[in-house]
Amino acid sequence: MKSYIGIDLGGTNVRVAKVSADGEVLAVVKGPSYSQDGPAKVMANLKNLIRKIPDWQECSGIGVGVPGPVDAVTRTMVLSTNLPGFTGYPMAAELEAELGIPTYLDNDANVAGLAEALVGAGKGLKTVFYTTISTGIGGVLIVDGKAVSGKHGFGGEIANIIIDRNRDKVNYLNVGAIENEASGTALTRKGRRIFGDEVKHAGNVFDLAAKGNEDAVKIIDEAAKDLGQLFATIACVCDPDIFIIGGGMMRSADSLLPGVVKNFKEMSHTALADTKFVIAGLDEPGVIGAAMLPVSYGK
Amino acid sequence: MKSYIGIDLGGTNVRVAKVSADGEVLAVVKGPSYSQDGPAKVMANLKNLIRKIPDWQECSGIGVGVPGPVDAVTRTMVLSTNLPGFTGYPMAAELEAELGIPTYLDNDANVAGLAEALVGAGKGLKTVFYTTISTGIGGVLIVDGKAVSGKHGFGGEIANIIIDRNRDKVNYLNVGAIENEASGTALTRKGRRIFGDEVKHAGNVFDLAAKGNEDAVKIIDEAAKDLGQLFATIACVCDPDIFIIGGGMMRSADSLLPGVVKNFKEMSHTALADTKFVIAGLDEPGVIGAAMLPVSYGK
Repeated sequence: MKSYIGIDLGGTNVRVAKVSADGEVLAVVKGPSYSQDGPAKVMANLKNLIRKIPDWQECSGIGVGVPGPVDAVTRTMVLSTNLPGFTGYPMAAELEAELGIPTYLDNDANVAGLAEALVGAGKGLKTVFYTTISTGIGGVLIVDGKAVSGKHGFGGEIANIIIDRNRDKVNYLNVGAIENEASGTALTRKGRRIFGDEVKHAGNVFDLAAKGNEDAVKIIDEAAKDLGQLFATIACVCDPDIFIIGGGMMRSADSLLPGVVKNFKEMSHTALADTKFVIAGLDEPGVIGAAMLPVSYGK
Repeated sequence: MKSYIGIDLGGTNVRVAKVSADGEVLAVVKGPSYSQDGPAKVMANLKNLIRKIPDWQECSGIGVGVPGPVDAVTRTMVLSTNLPGFTGYPMAAELEAELGIPTYLDNDANVAGLAEALVGAGKGLKTVFYTTISTGIGGVLIVDGKAVSGKHGFGGEIANIIIDRNRDKVNYLNVGAIENEASGTALTRKGRRIFGDEVKHAGNVFDLAAKGNEDAVKIIDEAAKDLGQLFATIACVCDPDIFIIGGGMMRSADSLLPGVVKNFKEMSHTALADTKFVIAGLDEPGVIGAAMLPVSYGK
């Protein structure tokens, strides 16, 4: 079976893995990413780590997941807040030239979605929508094993979808944007407005709801309705076989997800009632998804 | 250059054309579809018309556009209100077996979108979203020349996307669904509520707005905002290079489209400001798009 090198390059750490075509992690090396020391140091470190992978020369492709939007055509980052100096830097071309292995780049959210689509819950399915609900809300549409990144790399950037025009203006996003209404940050904000500093994070709101606090239950119910509408909207555009949901909020999936699915069904054509909703389950989506990048390009 | 047979099979008429790979119509034959006489008569008529096309045997594929949802895997209609007896009928398999040419089936809206994507305004672009705004509102996402039909064939069926929760309940669709707020039917309804029977169709509302009637202007402005939000929402999911818009409402594009684009930009990330909005322009999207079906499958 073919194998691939998957790299999860973050602002703090980097993980490099050898992954089989069916998503099994065969070897991992890791270390600091030296992001603040600039591209030369980051790249030297990266090549050094790749060469520590057993039989790295036999891998059929390299994929790199990076923290920020990517231009898939030039294989460079468009914005690299957490990796100074990497905007427009030819990272993929340099690795490919020096190591002699085809190399691909995508943002870390797309990469995690690709892992779930190709070797996780979406395996074998044609149309997959992966969503992460955490501090923010993001996602990616994957059709036939390829991310639909779109013209500007904003495909799946669902944070700004308007759910309800009649909400408060919170920040630069649209009034009623889903990220301001149902992300972890949103639930924390809504919880604090009622309960004050007792609420440190969204988990506290779920705890209060579990104890029967009606105000907390109302916050959760509203988020479930907002997210149900979000998924119903996405289904009108691409009708996925499955919605795979990851991110920190899924720690409270038992309290949240049944309401989301109930609302989705109420707002969708009955034919869509069997659309699957599954919690993301891979242990290492970052490196596995990065390794799946060359697979999605047919390598 | 390769050529293909495109069939636009409607409830009343059928058009059969020979179309070149770049979308030029080389020959057309047409006639009644005999839809009320049942599949045997419809199919015999269809085969007869195909055999009237010069050198039909040399065509590399046949595509059929039908009025209703299609299961792309079994190549049969899922619902065939306007073609009685065709639900589950193996139309494509029968043509393929008898004529010896690979045959594909899709619904007429997807087929029109495919024509615009492959040989119309979307030619050469990777991600295209086609929308028709007419009596109803429908659409299709086309990526790499293939329609994203989704699990249940509902990909692009955007009529039910909620634009504003705080509207009137109109019919079985969601409260605030775009089709009930910005289709031709919706503008007619809104116009009649103010102007009574003077309004026969949406064009009358555009005429009143052109004469400076403030209530009519308000209806058009609201529709432009609703449609701007619709396209901003779709862009969050798939970030198309281009929105191609067809349907009867585009007869009033001069009055409507600038407002739609302005609202789209206000609700979208600045990076998306150069997303194209173009009016569908092909003369024969039905037969051309049907002929492009085999092309989209690599024939």
